[in-house]
Amino acid sequence: MKQEVTLGIDIGGTTTQFGLVNRSGNVLFDATVDTASFETADEYLEYLYQKIEEKTATLKSELIEIKAVGIGAPNGNYYKGIIDCAPNLKWGKTRVEFVKKFQKYFNVPMALTNDANAAALGEMIFGYGKEGYEIDGQMVPIKDFIMITLGTGLGSGIIVDGRMVYGHDGFAGEMGHIIAVENGRRCGCSRKGCLEAYASAPGLKRTVFELIAENPFRESNLKMYNYERLESKNIYEEALKGDEIALEAFARTGEILGRKLADAAAVTTPKAFFLFGGLAKSGNLILDPTRKAFYERLLNIYQKGNIIIDISKLFKEGKNIAVMGAAALAWDEYEKSQQNATI
Amino acid sequence: MKQEVTLGIDIGGTTTQFGLVNRSGNVLFDATVDTASFETADEYLEYLYQKIEEKTATLKSELIEIKAVGIGAPNGNYYKGIIDCAPNLKWGKTRVEFVKKFQKYFNVPMALTNDANAAALGEMIFGYGKEGYEIDGQMVPIKDFIMITLGTGLGSGIIVDGRMVYGHDGFAGEMGHIIAVENGRRCGCSRKGCLEAYASAPGLKRTVFELIAENPFRESNLKMYNYERLESKNIYEEALKGDEIALEAFARTGEILGRKLADAAAVTTPKAFFLFGGLAKSGNLILDPTRKAFYERLLNIYQKGNIIIDISKLFKEGKNIAVMGAAALAWDEYEKSQQNATI
Repeated sequence: MKQEVTLGIDIGGTTTQFGLVNRSGNVLFDATVDTASFETADEYLEYLYQKIEEKTATLKSELIEIKAVGIGAPNGNYYKGIIDCAPNLKWGKTRVEFVKKFQKYFNVPMALTNDANAAALGEMIFGYGKEGYEIDGQMVPIKDFIMITLGTGLGSGIIVDGRMVYGHDGFAGEMGHIIAVENGRRCGCSRKGCLEAYASAPGLKRTVFELIAENPFRESNLKMYNYERLESKNIYEEALKGDEIALEAFARTGEILGRKLADAAAVTTPKAFFLFGGLAKSGNLILDPTRKAFYERLLNIYQKGNIIIDISKLFKEGKNIAVMGAAALAWDEYEKSQQNATI
Repeated sequence: MKQEVTLGIDIGGTTTQFGLVNRSGNVLFDATVDTASFETADEYLEYLYQKIEEKTATLKSELIEIKAVGIGAPNGNYYKGIIDCAPNLKWGKTRVEFVKKFQKYFNVPMALTNDANAAALGEMIFGYGKEGYEIDGQMVPIKDFIMITLGTGLGSGIIVDGRMVYGHDGFAGEMGHIIAVENGRRCGCSRKGCLEAYASAPGLKRTVFELIAENPFRESNLKMYNYERLESKNIYEEALKGDEIALEAFARTGEILGRKLADAAAVTTPKAFFLFGGLAKSGNLILDPTRKAFYERLLNIYQKGNIIIDISKLFKEGKNIAVMGAAALAWDEYEKSQQNATI
């Protein structure tokens, strides 16, 4: 009997990752190819297809059946199957009808969304949504949660009652652009005070610079870095050594994040917020102040401690969350197609 | 053939409304009875049941079949079927197992939630969710929207893809308690700066007092009112006459509301926000500044004008939204029970 798998593809500005993932979440293989060196989407897609074929051929491919394809991409729109003007994709700065084009190569159910949404589905189907989160000694599958990626920006994917919230237009979950501070920092979206201008890797860097400006009389190795060279990893390392500015930068970042998660809890009231992405690697340095501000701010009808803030299970375990997320999107789409077929 | 109806019950602190509503949204009758004069939930429920029986008996009751019961109640929890410590219900200040108790009287599918959630289901099943909203000359049923009640507080009910968002604990949609102003006005929930301390009937009153305090040299009839006597209706009437303070109070209220709706749009990205409740009667006085602030604040990926802010259809038409909402909850529950029966 053939092993049923889905193909998960995660498109980043520089590289694309893809892999085959079975229903249990085992990644049969994953691989990384170039995204940036193509002028047109058609050239990129032809190349991507060839690379997928090459890699699949190295498996005993007669034993593999690809049931569906899922794609995570910047500005990916689930309803339309398009990449809608993604500024960091050389061939994707205009509107690319990705699913339509790619279905020439794979005639199976296919879906596309943004990377945070795909990761949320990955956590739903392979992570805490499936395996369960330990609550009072019981493993409880979490079916209402918000997945937050803390990287170069802040992205979010919202799961309600086991289902992805795409919003009316396919662009739900832009929680990085909730206003966190009135007339605050300039954001890349051209507005001011957005959450991602604070709670993200560049946001943490900006907070370090703010803290140095506020009080340069404190000792800190971080004063040796210029803005271009400073990375969140440096701040993390200094914080571990007890650097005051680094510690306070994490505290301020978590405080702002925790407050806004408390506001979001008053909207969909998830059971959990799961963090992943570069900044989530700092673990308790970001979790502790986030939780503190969150529980301080949470409306009293939501019992304290009843809403979880933690690192994503897939991310904790070092899984390829990008590929597994895209593959989970494919499994979700496959199951929808099966349900529709039986109606 | 018997006419199939549901029984909708809306429990307020002073009075309870109930009525029978058919699948098309026709209200066969509605009636109002006392809530406040009972010491225990059991006494209240016995009385309520008798009143329902009396009213139903006046219909040709052999032609009526009650398929399900829906209840809208303060602090109503859908998952548990309980009223969870409602401060304004004399017999409901502790935990009342409402559905369990009431099923002694009606052995049909029964569900309970708060009034804003029930109203959202009413709009979904009988209002713009069914009849459609006119967009570019087409009537488009709206399946992703947030219902906002502006009354003594601000309540919300969230519909995603045609389904109610109850949250992990049954208490989703407390958008009145999103923090609108850091260290702002004291809220009844004991925190500071909650949205409902601004965008509600008492919030509008507080804004009038704030404006008078800021600049008492402006002429305004509102300076003749003490706090106890002033009602939002007075502010509305003065605004219609061109009173500067009244107009500015509406403008500030709408500005704060519009900003927070823009933040909420970055979470579930609804197609529409529909307002109802006492303050919504002021129509464009509240809609115009809300829309202005909303579109100014909205993230640029959400096309301007693509998200609607309007008064609820049921509310515009003067329908009994409380009873119709509770009846819609009952229809929703009835359909779920039918689906489960066929699986």
